[in-house]
Order: sequence, then structure tokens, then C-alpha cells
Amino acid sequence: MLAYIERTRDGLRLTREEIQDLVAGVVDGRWPDYQLAAWLMAAYLRGLGEQEVVDLTEAMAWTGSGNQENALGEVDKHSTGGVGDKTTLAVAPLVASLGIRVAKMSGRGLGHTGGTLDKLESIPGFRVTLTREEVRAQVERVGVAVVAQSAELAPADGRLYALRDVTGTVDSIPLIASSVMSKKLAAGAPCLVLDVKVGRGAFMATLERARELASLMIRIGEAHGRRVHALITSMDQPLGYAVGNAVEVNEAAACLRGQGPQDLRQEVVELATHMVALARKWELAYAHEQVEQALATGKAYETFLQWIQAQGGDAQAVENGLPLAPARLKVRAEREGWVASVDALTVGQVVLRLGAGRERLGDPVHHGVGVQLSVKVGDYVSSGGELATVYAQQEDQAQGAARLLRQAIVLADAPVTVAPPVLEALGSGGGRIEPLLG
Amino acid sequence: MLAYIERTRDGLRLTREEIQDLVAGVVDGRWPDYQLAAWLMAAYLRGLGEQEVVDLTEAMAWTGSGNQENALGEVDKHSTGGVGDKTTLAVAPLVASLGIRVAKMSGRGLGHTGGTLDKLESIPGFRVTLTREEVRAQVERVGVAVVAQSAELAPADGRLYALRDVTGTVDSIPLIASSVMSKKLAAGAPCLVLDVKVGRGAFMATLERARELASLMIRIGEAHGRRVHALITSMDQPLGYAVGNAVEVNEAAACLRGQGPQDLRQEVVELATHMVALARKWELAYAHEQVEQALATGKAYETFLQWIQAQGGDAQAVENGLPLAPARLKVRAEREGWVASVDALTVGQVVLRLGAGRERLGDPVHHGVGVQLSVKVGDYVSSGGELATVYAQQEDQAQGAARLLRQAIVLADAPVTVAPPVLEALGSGGGRIEPLLG
Repeated sequence: MLAYIERTRDGLRLTREEIQDLVAGVVDGRWPDYQLAAWLMAAYLRGLGEQEVVDLTEAMAWTGSGNQENALGEVDKHSTGGVGDKTTLAVAPLVASLGIRVAKMSGRGLGHTGGTLDKLESIPGFRVTLTREEVRAQVERVGVAVVAQSAELAPADGRLYALRDVTGTVDSIPLIASSVMSKKLAAGAPCLVLDVKVGRGAFMATLERARELASLMIRIGEAHGRRVHALITSMDQPLGYAVGNAVEVNEAAACLRGQGPQDLRQEVVELATHMVALARKWELAYAHEQVEQALATGKAYETFLQWIQAQGGDAQAVENGLPLAPARLKVRAEREGWVASVDALTVGQVVLRLGAGRERLGDPVHHGVGVQLSVKVGDYVSSGGELATVYAQQEDQAQGAARLLRQAIVLADAPVTVAPPVLEALGSGGGRIEPLLG
Repeated sequence: MLAYIERTRDGLRLTREEIQDLVAGVVDGRWPDYQLAAWLMAAYLRGLGEQEVVDLTEAMAWTGSGNQENALGEVDKHSTGGVGDKTTLAVAPLVASLGIRVAKMSGRGLGHTGGTLDKLESIPGFRVTLTREEVRAQVERVGVAVVAQSAELAPADGRLYALRDVTGTVDSIPLIASSVMSKKLAAGAPCLVLDVKVGRGAFMATLERARELASLMIRIGEAHGRRVHALITSMDQPLGYAVGNAVEVNEAAACLRGQGPQDLRQEVVELATHMVALARKWELAYAHEQVEQALATGKAYETFLQWIQAQGGDAQAVENGLPLAPARLKVRAEREGWVASVDALTVGQVVLRLGAGRERLGDPVHHGVGVQLSVKVGDYVSSGGELATVYAQQEDQAQGAARLLRQAIVLADAPVTVAPPVLEALGSGGGRIEPLLG
């Protein structure tokens, strides 16, 4: 292991066999944490070669319980994590409604970004832990299942990720790419669409880094025979209006009914289009048509309700709108103006502190709390106009949240230009594709 | 600690208070090894600022048992470690013979470089572990004591050094400088001469890096009120002819009797001159005169024998020449030529494998084994002429050593230019001083 550390430290490359030995030692406990920590910092600061990242991803994928041959779904998606990102809730049934099997594993929220599982669990009765046999049967029957990721999926990544978290080595493109892609390879779907977020509320702060990460992940997937596209989407402001758990389920349902915020709809349609196009090897334009039709005819919404029911959830409660927390407070503008920014990171942190997420694994989650924004960047608001509604457990928490939200929403004296939610699409080899609705 | 890791990782600076907290946590066990390992790798790759190194050194020095006010010696020396480096054995009594108190702590050998303590222990009866009171009394009576470094001298450095050894972070100028200087500050002498080795058998491979390390250590010492000079000395070939333990004691004794190899004498005189000049605030030229006189009158040799006796050693055995290992083999030249190089690293490794040193802490040491070279770089040797004598425990070990030595000593067809043993001298602020005998 010392030789591996020294090589990476000096910017030299490890062979496929050496990477495999390194990863095997992570799983069997041969390497102590301090040597792995030193190697991770060396990799963080010196980078890894592309072949090393490909080999690392493969080695991590194959140490787990994953099995490509038994993949239950035809297409997968992954988001690098954002604020108000409820796209999976809408995209999974939307794609499934076109006859494409979706069997997705998701994570819980940690820090200021929410987790799909927490959102799903705000639906009364919804079960996120199914056996493999249950997943198979459900996907056959209703076309879609979203379940908790098994700890055994990529155990090497599990140990390395825990160490990265406490050694300042999270924010590294090769390490992020191999971590994400090892789980996606292990999960086994032959097609994958990546949603790489960029901006204030995302891990990637600049478009350049987001592009670098996206294109590296595409190449890793392709090196292992997968078909992969990536969208680079803006996370300066939250996606849609709703941030929380139940409040986001309600917004996803609205989106599938043809309502809801424009930016969410646009991102959902674009993600679904790429997933359908990859799974069916269709032209993007044709896939887009099919997706729009599934939305327009209500087929997507119907699949959504069937999916919820199949997984034990109360579909009627979702149709009626899930109940939100009792202490409600409207945040109003103290002056008139145009919304110049809605800081996604702050909104995420506010909602986290209201109890919608967890600061540490194992913290309890309140499903009804959250924030419903009333404005997006570019909107005009009059003095006293509504900026947001806070849903809290208690009055004082609502007031604290309102204070922070007022700071997070910046008003300007003149109209501002608004960036589209989907900034770029990348296809095979990481090359650029024109976004559909850009 | 995570914040410290991230700052150093990003090339930002830690304050004095933060460095003190970091070091305190190393000693009290607050930081786990994996976080320290990540920080060390970040410091290795991003470097540390000069003020950070000064603060780190001070914090590590003050966590131990050291106490500047009670310093028992007036001047100290430190070598970064080389092959055949027996200078302490000669320099300590030489300086003491001029009435300057020398109370030096030394280490044991590890890897291919020998340790002063192992060499001293090849003298029958010699005790390297004295109480503080014994050291004080001996220094008062004979002017010199050389003892084992206490584990308590700089405990933070102890833990960090052990981690560096297994995380590929040994070879870092700021980390080496703070490690060495923390122990020297803790030991407490007001004056210090550093011997920074450069070349094949040394940690520093290039003159530039040796100069950088030397001048950083001088500035750290001066920032803490010490007077510090440094010599940069060549370690391409071993120093002198003798490499081992007893064989080196014999050579040091010869040097003090006015015999022995020229390069060893030159380095001993130059080190002693700087130590005397710093301790007495004399001009270098005057200090040099005094040193030469101490050698010429036999006063230095007399102090050497008194010192050995005071510390329990058999001075008569040293006068007679310490006995060497029984299996002896002469290495002879297979062709005629001029000696172009004597690879110090290989010679060091040969002697280590003969049993003179240890690969791991705690390995036993054989005092009689070693190599007595017959040639230095630049010498002419005829075909069949003597290159070296091996002293081994067993015949087959001697033969193995001889094979490796024959490869380590390279002969050329034409005379070669010879670099002087002392390459540079650095004074206050790291500025260059003309070497005395260059």
C-alpha cells in the first residue's frame, strides 16, 4: 500500500492489477484507515489518470453484490444532488409509462440536499425496502420500483466514502466519478442518464468542473459497455418551488398532471427523453414526442399512482395532496423589485434545520416540514408580496426560517436575465448535444 | 481537524493558535490517525508556509519534556543521516576539549544510515542511557555526554513521524525541518550546527533541496532565538573509509589521533569550527585555529578517552582498536582504473544486511560487522588491487557483500574530478558562508 501511496503522490499511474489489489484490501481490511486517507488525499491533490478511474470504478463495482446480468431495469438515472430535486419521483413513472422498465436504487438525504427515499416515505405506507424478488415482480407488473440502496452494493465505495467525508477529500472529480459509477455499474442497468448539478446549491461550483465530471462519468460508463448521457443543470436556485419531503411529492404529482413549475417540467421532460432515447435507441426528437404524449394523455400520472400503490403507499393521499406541517408562516417582500437570486444552499440549509433532512446518518426526519417558494429568479414582486411559505413543526422555528429565507431571496431594481434549468447535454464520449428546450 | 485539513489541502495558511490546537490534539489523541494522515499528505503536496513551519516546530517542541532554561550543553549538532557518518564521535570531544559543554542526544540507526548510539555501544561497557543528573555531572566533569534521546522529548513529533513513515510523507522539507528542529529546540542548546547531507546515500538528492532544507532549519532556529549554522556535505560516497559500528569507532579514534581519512578530518574540523565559533561568538578563522590546535596537541583525543571512560566504556579497548567480525574477505578490482563512484546507498545497504543496522526498530545489531573501504572516488587502482575489506559473521555473508560492493565501486578509464566533502556552509538567515577548507 505504501508503494501505491507514493506512486499516486508523485503523479505516477497504478496498473489495473494494482488498483484491484488496492480495492480488495479496502474490502478485506488489509489497509489501515490512515494509509487509505493518505492515498485519498494524494489522489485528491494529484488526480488520477482516466484509465485508473475506469479500473477503480470497475474494481469497486465488482466487490459488491451487484450483477449486471440480472439487471432488473433497462435504464437508470443519477443526480449529483440538489435542493428541491424531486425529478426521480416524476421521471421514473414517466419513463415506465412508455413500457421501459425502471428499477432504481436511491439514497437518503444527507446535509442540505434531500434524498428521494425520504420524500417517498412521506407517502403513508410507502415501503422503500423490498426484496429482490419483490422488485422483480413489481417492475414486471407496473414497470417501476424505487428502493433503498443495499449496503452491499459497493462495499469498497462505502468504506472509502466514509473516510473521504472526514478527511477533506469529498470534492474530487475522479473520486466522485468512480464512487457514483461503481454503484451504477453494480446496479446493472445498461443505460444511464446523469444529472450533474452546478451552482450555489451543488457540489460542482462551476460549469467547467460539472462538464469535466459529467464527461468523465460518461467515459467510465462507456468503457464498461453502458450507454450514458448527461445533463448539466443549474442549481443556483432550488428546482421548482417546493423544498422538503411531502411538499416535493405534491409538486412532482402536479408536474405529472401537467401543472407545477415550468423549470421542473422542463428538466423532467429532458431527463425522461434522454432515458427513453438511450433505452430504445430512438432519436432524441422522437423520444421527446413520446414523453410529451405520455404526459398529455395522463398515462404517466396513472403509472405514478400505480407505482405508489404497488409499493404500499396511499395513492389517494397523494391525489388529495399530502398534509404539511402545522406552523405556517408567509415570507413577504420588504420592498418591490425583481428576484435576482434565490440562494439554493441557504434554502436547503433552512429546510434541513426545519427537520426535513439529517445532519448525521440516523437523525429522524419530519416529512411535513418544508418551504414552498412563491417566486423564481426573474419574477417581479411588489412590496409586501409573497416570497415563500414556511411549513414548520413550531412557530419559533417558522420565524427563524423566515428570517433566513428573506436573506436568501435577493431583490434587484431592474429585471435580470434568467439561465435555463438545463444548461448542457452531453452524449457519447462526453461530446455536447444541443439541449431540447434550451 | 477537518477544517485544518481542508485549509492545508487548498494551500491556505493555519494560524499559530490553529497549529497549536492541531499539535495538542496529536498529543492528547483527539485526532484519529486517518485525519492526521490526510493532513500530512496535504502538507507534503501543498507545502506549508514558513510561519506555519515555525509555529509547528515550536508547538511540537513545547509538548515534550524539553526545557530550554535547563539546557546542559552549550552547542548541539545534527546530521540528516549518511553512510559512514561518525562525525559526532570525533566532533563532540573535540569541541568539549576547548571547554565548551556538549550534551548531545542521539538516535539509533534505521535503514541504510547508521546511528551514533549503535556505534557507541560497540565499545564494551558504554552506557547510552543516563539520568539527567548523571548527564549534568558528567558534562561538568569531562565536558561531554552523548545519550539516547528520550521518547518524551517531543511526543507529537514521535506520533507524526511514525505516521509519516507508513503514509509516504517522510520526504517533505517542511515536515523534516519541523521534526528535526522540534527535537533540537526541546533539547535546549542555544547553538546548533546542522550537517545536511546531499547525494546518493542521503535523503536530499539535490543540492537545491539540501540548501532549501538547511536554510529553512536555520530560520526556524533563529525565529526561536537560537544561533544556527549549516554545512551541506556530500553523501555520494561514504564518509571516510569505515562503514559499520566498531569499525567506525576505530576510524573516529584515528581521526582524533591525527590519522585517518582526509575527508573525515575535513568535515570534523569544519563542523567543530562552526560549533566553537557559534558557542564562543568567535570569528570562524580563530575558532578554526583553536580546533586545529586541540587536534595537534592531543587534547581532543584525551577528552575522547575520558568521555568513553566516564560513560562506562572500555577506553583501553578503543586505544587498541575494537575487534571486528571474524569472516573477512578482501574485495579486489577486476580491472585497473580510476574510481569514478562508490555508491553510498549500496554500501549502506550492504552493511545493514551484514547486521550492523536494523530494518525494523528492535532488530538486534552486530557491532563487529562492516566494510572498510580501501579507495575513495578519484583514486587509481591497479587490476587485482584492493577495493575494500568485508567483516562479516559468516563466510557466505561476506561473499554476498563482496559481490554487491564490486558493483557499487565503479572504475573509469580516465581520472575523475572529485567534489570536496563540504559543499557549502550557510550562516544566519540561511546566507552562504565560504567553506573553510573548500
